[in-house]
Amino acid sequence: MMSLVGLSLRLRAAGCQGSTRTVATVVSGHKTARLVRQRLQVEVQEMRRVWSGFRPGLLVLQVGNRDDSNLYISSKLRAAAEIGIDAKHLRLPDSATQEQVLQSILSVNQDPSVHGLIVQLPLDSVNPMDPERITNTVSPEKDVDGLSCINAGKLSRGDLNDCFIPCTPNGCMELIRQTVVSVAGKHAVVIGRSKIVGAPMHDLLLWSDATVTTCHSKTPDLPEQVGRADILVVGAGRAEMVRGDWLKEGAVVIDCGINHIPDVTKVSGKRVVGDVHFASANQRAGFITPVPGGVGPMTVAMLMENTVQSARRFLLKSQAVEVNHAGFHRHGNRNGEVNRK
Amino acid sequence: MMSLVGLSLRLRAAGCQGSTRTVATVVSGHKTARLVRQRLQVEVQEMRRVWSGFRPGLLVLQVGNRDDSNLYISSKLRAAAEIGIDAKHLRLPDSATQEQVLQSILSVNQDPSVHGLIVQLPLDSVNPMDPERITNTVSPEKDVDGLSCINAGKLSRGDLNDCFIPCTPNGCMELIRQTVVSVAGKHAVVIGRSKIVGAPMHDLLLWSDATVTTCHSKTPDLPEQVGRADILVVGAGRAEMVRGDWLKEGAVVIDCGINHIPDVTKVSGKRVVGDVHFASANQRAGFITPVPGGVGPMTVAMLMENTVQSARRFLLKSQAVEVNHAGFHRHGNRNGEVNRK
Repeated sequence: MMSLVGLSLRLRAAGCQGSTRTVATVVSGHKTARLVRQRLQVEVQEMRRVWSGFRPGLLVLQVGNRDDSNLYISSKLRAAAEIGIDAKHLRLPDSATQEQVLQSILSVNQDPSVHGLIVQLPLDSVNPMDPERITNTVSPEKDVDGLSCINAGKLSRGDLNDCFIPCTPNGCMELIRQTVVSVAGKHAVVIGRSKIVGAPMHDLLLWSDATVTTCHSKTPDLPEQVGRADILVVGAGRAEMVRGDWLKEGAVVIDCGINHIPDVTKVSGKRVVGDVHFASANQRAGFITPVPGGVGPMTVAMLMENTVQSARRFLLKSQAVEVNHAGFHRHGNRNGEVNRK
Repeated sequence: MMSLVGLSLRLRAAGCQGSTRTVATVVSGHKTARLVRQRLQVEVQEMRRVWSGFRPGLLVLQVGNRDDSNLYISSKLRAAAEIGIDAKHLRLPDSATQEQVLQSILSVNQDPSVHGLIVQLPLDSVNPMDPERITNTVSPEKDVDGLSCINAGKLSRGDLNDCFIPCTPNGCMELIRQTVVSVAGKHAVVIGRSKIVGAPMHDLLLWSDATVTTCHSKTPDLPEQVGRADILVVGAGRAEMVRGDWLKEGAVVIDCGINHIPDVTKVSGKRVVGDVHFASANQRAGFITPVPGGVGPMTVAMLMENTVQSARRFLLKSQAVEVNHAGFHRHGNRNGEVNRK
C-alpha cells in the first residue's frame, strides 16, 4: 500500500502542483542493482537446470595493469560470480602490440563458451593502440558493453531488441522504471553527448517515446532547457553544475556524474559528488538519484544483464538449430521456458 | 553586397525582433543542388586529369521493375553522367531470391571500379526479402546511401568524417549552410525520427553544436516545441501540419515532406505540398525551403557528393599504399592536390 507521503511525491512527479512540500524520493541504485542481480541469479539457475551444465560466459580483456582498471574488473568478476556467470579475466602485458590485442579478441569471438566480451578501457600499453578499432573488433553478438558502431547504429535507429545497450544509460532507464513515472509523451532532457552516456541515453528515451532535448557544452541557455524537463539525465562531468532552482517541480533527476571535490571534514580530504547539486535539487525534484549509490552500482548490474541476455540469445539460436535438425539434445522440458522473460 | 531586404531577413533570422515585416527568403534546392553538381563536376575532371583515366563509379542495384523506382534510378543515372561519374544499373528480376541479391552485393563489394553501391528500395520481389540484412551487406566503405548500421552508428556518435551521411539530411544541412545562419549554439527542432531523415538529421545538427529537440507522433505539445526552434527540420509525412503561427519569428524552416493533396485546379486533380503550411510559414520564417524544389533535388545531389567522396577516399588509400611501397604509378603531379578539398 502506498503511504500518503509516497502518494504526494507521485502526484508531484506527475506534474501536479500545490502538493505538500516534501523532499524528493531518493531512487537507490544499490537497491535497484540488487534486485537486477537477484533476478539474473534466478534466471541463470533456471538456465543451468534446463540446459544441463550451461553457464553464461563473460570475458574481461585487460591490457596492462592500471590500479583503477583492476578495481573495476574485480567488481565485475565478483558480481558475475554471485549471479553464476562464468567470468574470466585475460590480462595482456603492457608490452602487447595492437595486433596481439586484435588476435586475442578474434580468438575469443570464436569461443562458444564466451557470450560477452568486454575490453577494459583505457588500454594501458607502451605501444600505440586505436581503441575505436579494438572496440569494433569485438563481435557485435558478444559486445555486451554496447560500444561497437553496429550496436550504436541499431540503438540510434530504434532497433532496441537487436542490439546491446550501453550499461550506464541502460541502468538509468532501469532507475527511471523504478519511479513508475511513464516516459512516453514526457519531455526528457539529456545533458551530455558522450558515446557511453549522453548519446545512447538520448536514443533510449526517444525510443521510449519521450520528446528528447540534448544539451551540451555549447548550449547557451542550460537552466532554461533544464527547466522544461519532466525527466532529466545528466552526464556532463561537472561537479554540482545543475542547481535545484533550475528544475521543473516534480522532475525525475538521474545523475550520472562522479566528481571529486575537496572536503576538509574527510580523512581523504575529498568527497564524491554528482553533476547535480543534490541538496537543492532534492527540494524540488520528484525523484532523484544520489551520488554515490545511484547510477554507479547500476552499470555493473546492467553489464551482467547484457551478458545473460547474450547467453539467452545464444540458447535461442542453438534451440532453433536443434529444431531445424529435429534432434533435441537439451535436458529438462522441451518448451524453452528458460528463454522467455 | 547585401541588399537592405537581405539584411533585414538576416537580422530576423538571427533572432532580432522589430525588423520590417517581409516574407521569408526562399532557399532553392534546385539552385543549391546545381551548385553542388557543378562543384563535383570540376572535382571529377581534376581526378581524371591527375589520375589518368580514373572515374568515380556508382552502381544502382534494383530488384524488380517498379515504375517509381525506375524514375528515381533514371534521375540518379542522369545526374551521375552529367558529373562524370561512371554509373551502372544492375537490375535483377522480381524472381530473384534473397541469396541471389546478397551474392550480387558481395560481388560488387569486391569490384574496385565501384566506389558507391546503393540498393534501390523498396525491393520488388516475389520472394521474401529482409531489407535490413540486404542494406547491411553493402560494404560500409561503399554505402553511399549511409543506411548501414555501421554508418548510422558512426554518425550518431559523432564520427562524421569517417562515415557516409544519409543523402536527405545531408542535403538539409547544405540548404541550412546556404542561409549563412550559424548552427552552433542554436536551438534546433527535428520533427520525425525515421532512419533516413529524422534520426540522422538529429545527429548532424547535434554534432554541428546545436541544442537539438526531437519531436514525433507521441509529442503532446508540438506547436510549443516548434515555437522554440531557431532551426526547424520537418520530416513528419503529414501534409501542411506545421502552421505559420507555430514558428519562432525568423526561424530557418527546412521541409522534407512530399505529400499529394487534392487540387481541382490541376489537370491531375492533385498537387504536391510539404509538411509545412508554406503560405503562413512564409510570413513568419526567416528562411524556408519550398515543396517541390527544396529538399527534393538535394537528395540526388548529395548521393553524388557521397560517391565522389568515396572515390576520393579510395584514391587517398591507393596513394598511401603507393607511398608505402615507394612505387608511384600515378600520372600528373605527385602532391596529391586532387585529394584535398
